[in-house]
Amino acid sequence: MTFDEARLHAWIATWARPAPLVGSSGHDAAVLAPTSGRPVCCTDQTVLGVHVEVDVAPRRFGAKAVARTISDLAATAARPHATLLALRAPQESSETWLRAVLDGARRRAEALGAPAVAGDLTCAPGPAQLSVTALGTLPGRRTPPGRDRARAGQVLLLTGPCGGSRARRHLVIEPRLAAGEALWRAGATALMDVSDGLGLDADRLARASGVRLVLEQVPIHRDARAAARTSGREPLDHALEDGEDHELLATLPVAAARRLLRDGLPGAPAAAVVGRVEGARRAQVGLWLDLAAPEECSDERARAPVRWRGRGWIHGASDADRSRPNG
Amino acid sequence: MTFDEARLHAWIATWARPAPLVGSSGHDAAVLAPTSGRPVCCTDQTVLGVHVEVDVAPRRFGAKAVARTISDLAATAARPHATLLALRAPQESSETWLRAVLDGARRRAEALGAPAVAGDLTCAPGPAQLSVTALGTLPGRRTPPGRDRARAGQVLLLTGPCGGSRARRHLVIEPRLAAGEALWRAGATALMDVSDGLGLDADRLARASGVRLVLEQVPIHRDARAAARTSGREPLDHALEDGEDHELLATLPVAAARRLLRDGLPGAPAAAVVGRVEGARRAQVGLWLDLAAPEECSDERARAPVRWRGRGWIHGASDADRSRPNG
Repeated sequence: MTFDEARLHAWIATWARPAPLVGSSGHDAAVLAPTSGRPVCCTDQTVLGVHVEVDVAPRRFGAKAVARTISDLAATAARPHATLLALRAPQESSETWLRAVLDGARRRAEALGAPAVAGDLTCAPGPAQLSVTALGTLPGRRTPPGRDRARAGQVLLLTGPCGGSRARRHLVIEPRLAAGEALWRAGATALMDVSDGLGLDADRLARASGVRLVLEQVPIHRDARAAARTSGREPLDHALEDGEDHELLATLPVAAARRLLRDGLPGAPAAAVVGRVEGARRAQVGLWLDLAAPEECSDERARAPVRWRGRGWIHGASDADRSRPNG
Repeated sequence: MTFDEARLHAWIATWARPAPLVGSSGHDAAVLAPTSGRPVCCTDQTVLGVHVEVDVAPRRFGAKAVARTISDLAATAARPHATLLALRAPQESSETWLRAVLDGARRRAEALGAPAVAGDLTCAPGPAQLSVTALGTLPGRRTPPGRDRARAGQVLLLTGPCGGSRARRHLVIEPRLAAGEALWRAGATALMDVSDGLGLDADRLARASGVRLVLEQVPIHRDARAAARTSGREPLDHALEDGEDHELLATLPVAAARRLLRDGLPGAPAAAVVGRVEGARRAQVGLWLDLAAPEECSDERARAPVRWRGRGWIHGASDADRSRPNG
């Protein structure tokens, strides 16, 4: 059976009632129980063949779409509360496949504390897409974290090693929710998740904040080393340029970072201080590399600090467009 | 210039800061000022060539995507607060066109009291799509309106005439926000907007509520009469089966409806009581027609009440799929 909106709606109507819902199920809009704290929201589109392989298991597709969106809540220190799922797929999609996408999404959302409360189904040509909007809350009245809030004198913390996520990790993203909250409570001001590559995202953070961000070490994931064995690229390049790590980057005072790492950052046992934030004249703003460990670094980047001139991972961009020199 | 995510982001960064935003602009997720009342949310996908003509003016495309989503807030008596815009478009889209879509969307959202606070850009093959998530609030603690809350003895109110929206009205949807709020305050229990055709949506309302809904008159829009001149169909059929009217259907006590209509329903000068809600055995549940005015009705439906057996307007469905007999 192919895409039939009415039949899918009838199936969705059999789902358990989501906990946050106060109003009627299946209504035009979802009315939720009041929340304390400030509302936080974000949205992400996940397209078959762009963000996941065309032959991906449909449940993984759905689960990834949810997890990468909720990672943006983690990067805002917010607690997930609810999700909205909007599925677009072509007429020829099998109902079994469509149900599996939605089921994967709703289960992952539920597991992450953000049950699916509303959605939309659209039959349209072109690759299937699941758009996820995540709602959360941020307690207290402190200025929320932002990628524009790195301050000179802080250190840069990364919640885990990067690179090589394409092997499998990009399908099983674990949003660093507890770590994000702990970092913010500990005094982190800048916070973001690494989705388009550690280099590109750190460079964005530096530019948004108007600082020079100096990367002193790059924790390399074993998947990056594995990828390097066949790619002809260095493990370091994979760690800096592959996307979809969904680790958090945070800037915070050095004492706070040390305390956090000593006590253990929840859900992020491999967290480490990886660099420093420096005030800078406009021409110096951006990401710089000051990598001491020569075994990770076979080229001129060891004679640091040098400006990062790598590329990031932009979904759907041609290879030519992926190169983004920061001149 | 074609789709370039970084360049579009740079342009979006020049937009005025949205009023509800507390956190940083351009962050992974948007942190908003706390709201009073219960959170309300909904999402809708609008696809080029499916929900709008392929040659639509891009600003109209953006504006429609926003208005049809916010109409779902109106159907929940909610006040709009913020929107999230997620644009997917193929590489070959011109930047001028993409900007115009986003600009049309953000202006319409701002005008409807729901500034765009966050979003996503994705380059992917297939027809362009704008997904809009709308956030709003519902004051008080009363049970929210739902399409499953029609009760026997109530009357059915419609905020305006239907049919023929394809001529132009579907591009300039006016969400019945003030009317929705007034209806709910006056005691309406069931509420929904007419998006897939008056007949189909009223039938859905009846089935969700487990009642027999008897339509006694159908206010026919002049666009429906105009369409009938060339379509070979009756104006009544257009009024019952065309989609995207985005008028509200509400059920409420007869005295409350009379009072509302006497005082004038805000933003809905042509509102009228169009039918009644009856308790029904299971086999009788659904929409029935009891149309008295013979000039609107050249066929056997005048010998009412007869069960409605028309079709609705399902975007993207083939003509064969659009026919949904209610057996």
